[in-house]
Amino acid sequence: MTDEDASCPVPASRYDEVVLGHGSGGRLSADLLEHVFLDAFGDIGPDAREDSAIVETSGARIAITTDSFVVSPWRFPGGDIGSLAVYGTVNDLAVSGAIPEWITAAFILEEGLPLAELASLARSMRDACVRAGVRIVAGDTKVVDRGNGDGIFINTTGVGRVPVGRALTATAIEPGDVVLVSGTMGDHGVAILSVREGLTFDGAIESDAAPLHDLVASVLDAAPHTRCLRDPTRGGLASALNEFASASGVGIRIDEAAVPVHETVRGACEMLGLDPFYVANEGKLVAVVPQDEAAAALAAMRAHPLGAAASQIGEATEPPIRVVVETSFGTQRVLPLLSGEALPRIC
Amino acid sequence: MTDEDASCPVPASRYDEVVLGHGSGGRLSADLLEHVFLDAFGDIGPDAREDSAIVETSGARIAITTDSFVVSPWRFPGGDIGSLAVYGTVNDLAVSGAIPEWITAAFILEEGLPLAELASLARSMRDACVRAGVRIVAGDTKVVDRGNGDGIFINTTGVGRVPVGRALTATAIEPGDVVLVSGTMGDHGVAILSVREGLTFDGAIESDAAPLHDLVASVLDAAPHTRCLRDPTRGGLASALNEFASASGVGIRIDEAAVPVHETVRGACEMLGLDPFYVANEGKLVAVVPQDEAAAALAAMRAHPLGAAASQIGEATEPPIRVVVETSFGTQRVLPLLSGEALPRIC
Repeated sequence: MTDEDASCPVPASRYDEVVLGHGSGGRLSADLLEHVFLDAFGDIGPDAREDSAIVETSGARIAITTDSFVVSPWRFPGGDIGSLAVYGTVNDLAVSGAIPEWITAAFILEEGLPLAELASLARSMRDACVRAGVRIVAGDTKVVDRGNGDGIFINTTGVGRVPVGRALTATAIEPGDVVLVSGTMGDHGVAILSVREGLTFDGAIESDAAPLHDLVASVLDAAPHTRCLRDPTRGGLASALNEFASASGVGIRIDEAAVPVHETVRGACEMLGLDPFYVANEGKLVAVVPQDEAAAALAAMRAHPLGAAASQIGEATEPPIRVVVETSFGTQRVLPLLSGEALPRIC
Repeated sequence: MTDEDASCPVPASRYDEVVLGHGSGGRLSADLLEHVFLDAFGDIGPDAREDSAIVETSGARIAITTDSFVVSPWRFPGGDIGSLAVYGTVNDLAVSGAIPEWITAAFILEEGLPLAELASLARSMRDACVRAGVRIVAGDTKVVDRGNGDGIFINTTGVGRVPVGRALTATAIEPGDVVLVSGTMGDHGVAILSVREGLTFDGAIESDAAPLHDLVASVLDAAPHTRCLRDPTRGGLASALNEFASASGVGIRIDEAAVPVHETVRGACEMLGLDPFYVANEGKLVAVVPQDEAAAALAAMRAHPLGAAASQIGEATEPPIRVVVETSFGTQRVLPLLSGEALPRIC
């Protein structure tokens, strides 16, 4: 099996211990999910690989999603672990079509963390909740002894309301559907890397971390038959597109020149040997919509403050199940699932 | 302010950095909640201190609770971090009166964790979910680099359905109400300590970790006017009773001789200088019920496999707001909130 063949099932576990790549959102993450968690959880485990689970209770449909945040460092241009923990979970609810309503906040603190730092991150969470229109309804704090944690880890779990009749799923994608992105790719990952490695580039790069609930509402108003939405976080755009292809059994063709990338991010990626298609975003939307709603969806994105640089980047095609990028040189390259860990602890 | 006066408000933060006691479930945890989290979260934060938040959506009432588990070591007599993570969250839902339905599972793994170990803990979670009647509906895995974690931390967040008309709250306790416990106190904490410190005692001590949903259902059937329930985990029975007193503005009088404690646990606590009233439980219920339903509630507990050693241990009294223990010597002692961290990383 080669990394070029994204349609193959994941291999049996190639490692006997956890490696950083297991947290990458790429092939090793899929491997761990398949061969450890789904194998163990069996019929009591998640039956879907969407960003949120949707369940019914007493006639109400609710979406549930969970995410832990271990980003290093805690503060970076454009955000911090507190706001990221809120937006990340709000976005997972939003792209599942849910209206985000409540989140829980659970902290694992390392002995020695300055309380002033914790208070400041908590205030950042508060501001993010106000912006995202959600309430923190439950919390938990654990403390680990010095040397057994890394300052602060935050888990947020989100619960949202799913409007009647709404069903977004990557399995619904059909050949001919159009792929849109709401803006530039890779800003978050490069922002983290710049501060972590002490790099300076021509021009400042800020994380794009932002709550997508309102942008999603605009897109769904404009394109009511939207097939599915994703926020391309760990593993970046490439991972989201590979998920789409696998889930729906289609091919995806992307026009490289149509994918917006900040000049500074492009330069940084070239310097560091990264592909911006694999670098994490925390405030961008990928949407797959039927062809006859594509123009309306794109217009809705561009009319929104978070979607000014939105672009139509490609479309779903007949199989084979894979993601193909047409480069500006007229050549094609296959975009596989991320096979290692390009940027550990990015969220 | 002295530790003997449990009715006083928590003091302004006495530390400028996180200490292990901030995770104790006692006074320092209350301090952190009050002076850092509630202060920061303000009007978007938790408005109650029950074990779960109860919210309404589309006419359905749901309970939401979150807990991270950092217990060290991962395996201990009677359980492991996987089953504990399921039961802990199921129990927080159950004692709020909710029927546990769904949980999320989020893992923070340290590079180097053996995959076989992870798979085994995941299977333990599965078995615990089956026993507790819940499904894992969403998950997440993050990996931190070696030296910045401690093998495995698990967050579980639970969502349950709250039956119409059910309202359990510590604020409802009135003088004359009766306090019951479902069995022996301190087993979990002493079991963890025994394996962590390599201690051997006369007789084996196993964690009592178990799902309480079914026991709770029995008690609520037998005593429909139950005021409130708690699972006395971190901070033990003493913390639960102090919470009751503070929330409802009553006193609590406990008959020490009526509180069941395993002989081995009592011996271990004496040797280690611990008070079993402060040691964590993970499968025990504390119930406060009106006097005229106390006998029925006690009988229901004793008829259940998890409540065979249930006991009526005391009652709510007129203020002052404090917990008083009447010892077998006929003397009285005040049981304050735990002021330090007796047993770090117990759950």
